[in-house]
Amino acid sequence: MERKEFRDLASPAAAREAIESLSLEGGIDRVPLEEASGRVLVARLDAELDVPGFDRASLDGYALAARETFGADEADPAELEVVGEVHAGEEPSIDLEAGEAVEISTGAVMPSGADAMVPVERTDIDTETKTVRIRTSVAPGDNVMFAGADVAAGERALGPGTQITPRDIGLLSALGIDEVPVRARPTVGIVSTGDELVRPGGDLESARGEIYDVNSYTIAAGVEDAGGEAVLYPHAGDEQAEMEAILKEAAEECDLVLSSGSTSASAVDVIYRVIEEQGELLLHGVSVKPGKPMLVGRLGGSDGSDGSNGDGRSSTVDSAYVGLPGYPVSAMMVFRTFVAPAIRAAAGVPEPDSATVSGVMAREERYGEGRLRLMPVGVVEREDDSPLVYPVDKGSGATTSLAEADGVVEVSPETDYLEEGESVAVTLFSPDVRPPTLLGIGEDDPTLNRLLDGLENPRYLSVGTRPGLRRLRDGVPDVAVVAGPLERDVDAVELGRWRREWGLVVRPGNPDELEGLADLLEHDLRFVNRTTDSGLRSSLEAELDAIAADRDERPEDVRDAIDGFDLALRAHESPARKVIGGDADAGLGLRETADRLDLAFVPVDSEPVRVLANPDRVDTESVRELEAALESDSEIDIAR
Amino acid sequence: MERKEFRDLASPAAAREAIESLSLEGGIDRVPLEEASGRVLVARLDAELDVPGFDRASLDGYALAARETFGADEADPAELEVVGEVHAGEEPSIDLEAGEAVEISTGAVMPSGADAMVPVERTDIDTETKTVRIRTSVAPGDNVMFAGADVAAGERALGPGTQITPRDIGLLSALGIDEVPVRARPTVGIVSTGDELVRPGGDLESARGEIYDVNSYTIAAGVEDAGGEAVLYPHAGDEQAEMEAILKEAAEECDLVLSSGSTSASAVDVIYRVIEEQGELLLHGVSVKPGKPMLVGRLGGSDGSDGSNGDGRSSTVDSAYVGLPGYPVSAMMVFRTFVAPAIRAAAGVPEPDSATVSGVMAREERYGEGRLRLMPVGVVEREDDSPLVYPVDKGSGATTSLAEADGVVEVSPETDYLEEGESVAVTLFSPDVRPPTLLGIGEDDPTLNRLLDGLENPRYLSVGTRPGLRRLRDGVPDVAVVAGPLERDVDAVELGRWRREWGLVVRPGNPDELEGLADLLEHDLRFVNRTTDSGLRSSLEAELDAIAADRDERPEDVRDAIDGFDLALRAHESPARKVIGGDADAGLGLRETADRLDLAFVPVDSEPVRVLANPDRVDTESVRELEAALESDSEIDIAR
Repeated sequence: MERKEFRDLASPAAAREAIESLSLEGGIDRVPLEEASGRVLVARLDAELDVPGFDRASLDGYALAARETFGADEADPAELEVVGEVHAGEEPSIDLEAGEAVEISTGAVMPSGADAMVPVERTDIDTETKTVRIRTSVAPGDNVMFAGADVAAGERALGPGTQITPRDIGLLSALGIDEVPVRARPTVGIVSTGDELVRPGGDLESARGEIYDVNSYTIAAGVEDAGGEAVLYPHAGDEQAEMEAILKEAAEECDLVLSSGSTSASAVDVIYRVIEEQGELLLHGVSVKPGKPMLVGRLGGSDGSDGSNGDGRSSTVDSAYVGLPGYPVSAMMVFRTFVAPAIRAAAGVPEPDSATVSGVMAREERYGEGRLRLMPVGVVEREDDSPLVYPVDKGSGATTSLAEADGVVEVSPETDYLEEGESVAVTLFSPDVRPPTLLGIGEDDPTLNRLLDGLENPRYLSVGTRPGLRRLRDGVPDVAVVAGPLERDVDAVELGRWRREWGLVVRPGNPDELEGLADLLEHDLRFVNRTTDSGLRSSLEAELDAIAADRDERPEDVRDAIDGFDLALRAHESPARKVIGGDADAGLGLRETADRLDLAFVPVDSEPVRVLANPDRVDTESVRELEAALESDSEIDIAR
Repeated sequence: MERKEFRDLASPAAAREAIESLSLEGGIDRVPLEEASGRVLVARLDAELDVPGFDRASLDGYALAARETFGADEADPAELEVVGEVHAGEEPSIDLEAGEAVEISTGAVMPSGADAMVPVERTDIDTETKTVRIRTSVAPGDNVMFAGADVAAGERALGPGTQITPRDIGLLSALGIDEVPVRARPTVGIVSTGDELVRPGGDLESARGEIYDVNSYTIAAGVEDAGGEAVLYPHAGDEQAEMEAILKEAAEECDLVLSSGSTSASAVDVIYRVIEEQGELLLHGVSVKPGKPMLVGRLGGSDGSDGSNGDGRSSTVDSAYVGLPGYPVSAMMVFRTFVAPAIRAAAGVPEPDSATVSGVMAREERYGEGRLRLMPVGVVEREDDSPLVYPVDKGSGATTSLAEADGVVEVSPETDYLEEGESVAVTLFSPDVRPPTLLGIGEDDPTLNRLLDGLENPRYLSVGTRPGLRRLRDGVPDVAVVAGPLERDVDAVELGRWRREWGLVVRPGNPDELEGLADLLEHDLRFVNRTTDSGLRSSLEAELDAIAADRDERPEDVRDAIDGFDLALRAHESPARKVIGGDADAGLGLRETADRLDLAFVPVDSEPVRVLANPDRVDTESVRELEAALESDSEIDIAR
């Protein structure tokens, strides 16, 4: 197996420099005003007219010469002849003479001869004689907005680099500007490679090792967030000619091409070849974790017409190129650390204020690999105490852990481990990330899922009963949810409990006519179990132990008699899904699961599901919210 | 003039309640994954499959039964026969027997009989004998990601109310979900009314009192920011039938109709009629400033088919309705205070963290009108001191002051005045508002505008030389820019200066053959002056005084001899624009202005423009940045 090795890893700073040296800028767009919000001006915009363009009445009332009102007051009003009216949007046809006034609407043009106005509230009109009594005196300019008072022609309105807000749109509207020159969004082509990838929505053949393509849409959303325009290319298989054609097409059409996906030797080879033909490789491998296998360079497009642009490099060098790691978590971490800032810079979008949370490590975390580590973490808020920070790591192939994380802790290459309780700074994924109000850990359960739906912003890690109890003892979650017999005492406050019916999930109609666990021992049936982390597994083992005692057999022998007892799946629905797939005759599961998946159910027993609160956090708002949800649910017994 | 009075103003809390009581929710959209970022889930999404869907090799290497490696190490490797290979995306065709291994790629399906894998780095392959030496021992499960380890079928993936991030898109992709049910964006119809309004981009007739329609695009941008979908309706004039038709059409098509613009009696009358015909008026007038004339209600659409929906109200009640004040600043303040939160609630978008800045008032601000005041303010950062806060108020008709403001100070109805130095809390317009790095105040000048273009995030208020000096003395700006003779000593540090040529701006070709100021005194020419705030005006007056002295005349008589000496405009380009418009023969102005507007120029003299720094802030980063820009500009003399 031929493999590219990543030796002589570049430093993160060198990787940033290499990406900064690429030109991603996309030129200038002229966009209509209604699409200008959030875009970045490329040039200064000066006012080309006065706003308002005329002397304007600020209120409804009477326009007049201020001198006519001198000395007037409630007791001794001035009396003027009303010689006409002016409404907004009309050209006044009147020249005021001495002793005259004009009725005027808010926003109307001040007529010639008038230099002030009096609001209608300070006047009395006699409609018969067409005279108005002015009960106040005004100075020239009173209640008039002069031409240019708002914006004056020639004034600098908005500077280059301004990211346009709705308020700026107000200013541009007032100036009559309906199109603005803004930085073009850099176009970013996304090419996911790998024979095993299927676009979401397509049919997956798990037996062939197919998985859904996570990176394409995820990176595309990240590109749009950073102010770029994402272009998704058809997913490229590992076939070289196909991959080469797609990369060249993307290089021609985009300012930046991002590839990700296959880390197979052949894929890397194709990228190398396209870069080497007309491009340039700037960097190969970065000393970060995750993210080591990162490439930075320039990518050649299809062969152009003229061959050379005179600077000695081929004119078909079309695009900047960054190769992202294939694993989704690695790809996203590299993207946000190195690529997103470059896209923002090219788009002219300011770096977001990096929202930072200080917290303490919930448990010791060993590291010591000599690379900068970008460690995704979750944050648990605590009253009267620093937030707890726990690493979120489901293994290097995990696609989803970032959805369960709030931000990143940078761990320097020199750090061997972070101690429990050590202070760390978490850079949130974005300033609007809100850490969950409630962190729960434990058994997956349909009733629980329904309860969580009613809470404000919960996070639930369904790792099973045993790991849930362990982490509750470590003090990490607000609550643990545990199912089955409680094997040891726990220092926790039970908020509530319910029972759930468990048994064997079988094909619709129960074709094997199963009646209970005993049938598994006596017939040639393929069973699927759950892992020992699961509370359901504990209930099953307790039941089998009872059967063994009844029959006077050894518990091990009873277990061994079940074909598939050791085939243990993590998820509560997975055994049932094996039955649907025809790979098993019976699966350990809940009645609710069987009902949901239209399967038959052979009941065995019921087991308790308990919600246990961390004793230090029983009185926090979020735990009380959960308690209230438990209390208002008629199916649930409240223990407290 | 018939006018609707706003008596019995509702409290702000009552206004919020009235708007909350309206139903703005737009139902459910199903959007493709690539458009899901930022949208809000309406339902919980559970995993319908295991991720990965199969036991998966985490690295490149050899799949084998762990027990084959027990005891193996560098000194004593285990030797296994390589019986095939499995790549990602392939279904393994091999059943491993004792003594066998399979070459496997990252992400490939573990073949039957294998329960662990060894990375290639810990092996040596002999291609001739097809045997691999395993230099380490592994346990079952090592380097394998089991089916469902990432996400397990049946797990709660994302809860209702989740605002989808790129990280969530990763999770949804992994689950193969390509379409998600999200809250529909509430559609918000925007109807600006008023005969005087012209859409930006259209031709403006200032003589008729026309102005550009500011509210339509500005409110539309605010609606989109809040998560709504803005629908702009054709601008309605004050003609009743037209306005009624547009309002009814909008009410039929949208969840919410916002009107703004004309405050004329007829417009209000039409809205009342449409509300009264089929709708309901909930609230009329709110005790806030700005924003008093606000309406809240329901609006009837066009006559429907069936007439009644059984609850006694007509089925043609189609839309929520809020009437915004016509003045742009008032409209925006009411929109963001009362309407935007309701749109966000309907869209399911969380309220943004309100970013708040504590500062001190730069000067006393009197108020005392007994209404809650929403006071737009600018913020000036100071090193080692609280930021200064100054009200931004260009008068009630101003359209643009919000573009010069950073946020809002709420002043309670009981407050009569805010003292200079009093602490206030500024709610920034949005969490990403960055107050300017440099605040400059003073003369408008083309050279200055060019300099400002090179700075990071400057704000410049071109109010003229005199107000600039006054506010520098008050300690508000970082720098003041002043032109013309300095009339009194100022406590400031001059950072640099340049000279600018001023004179008379006249029609192209100078048809009146003007040679200087004396011609204005001797010929029948219409002149346009600048206001006394302007440094240019001071230079003109000094020059005329010199002429008077020369001629042994009184200065007043010399000024009076100029037709238009008292016609004083605020903006530096406005006199030149009067010449273009044919309203004047000569305007006071700069050579640069004449050149820019393709007019002829009769030079009189040159005057200094000085950049004066606030002595307390000479050493701040932003002032140094300006100083560096001054130093690097070849046209500018550095005084310091």
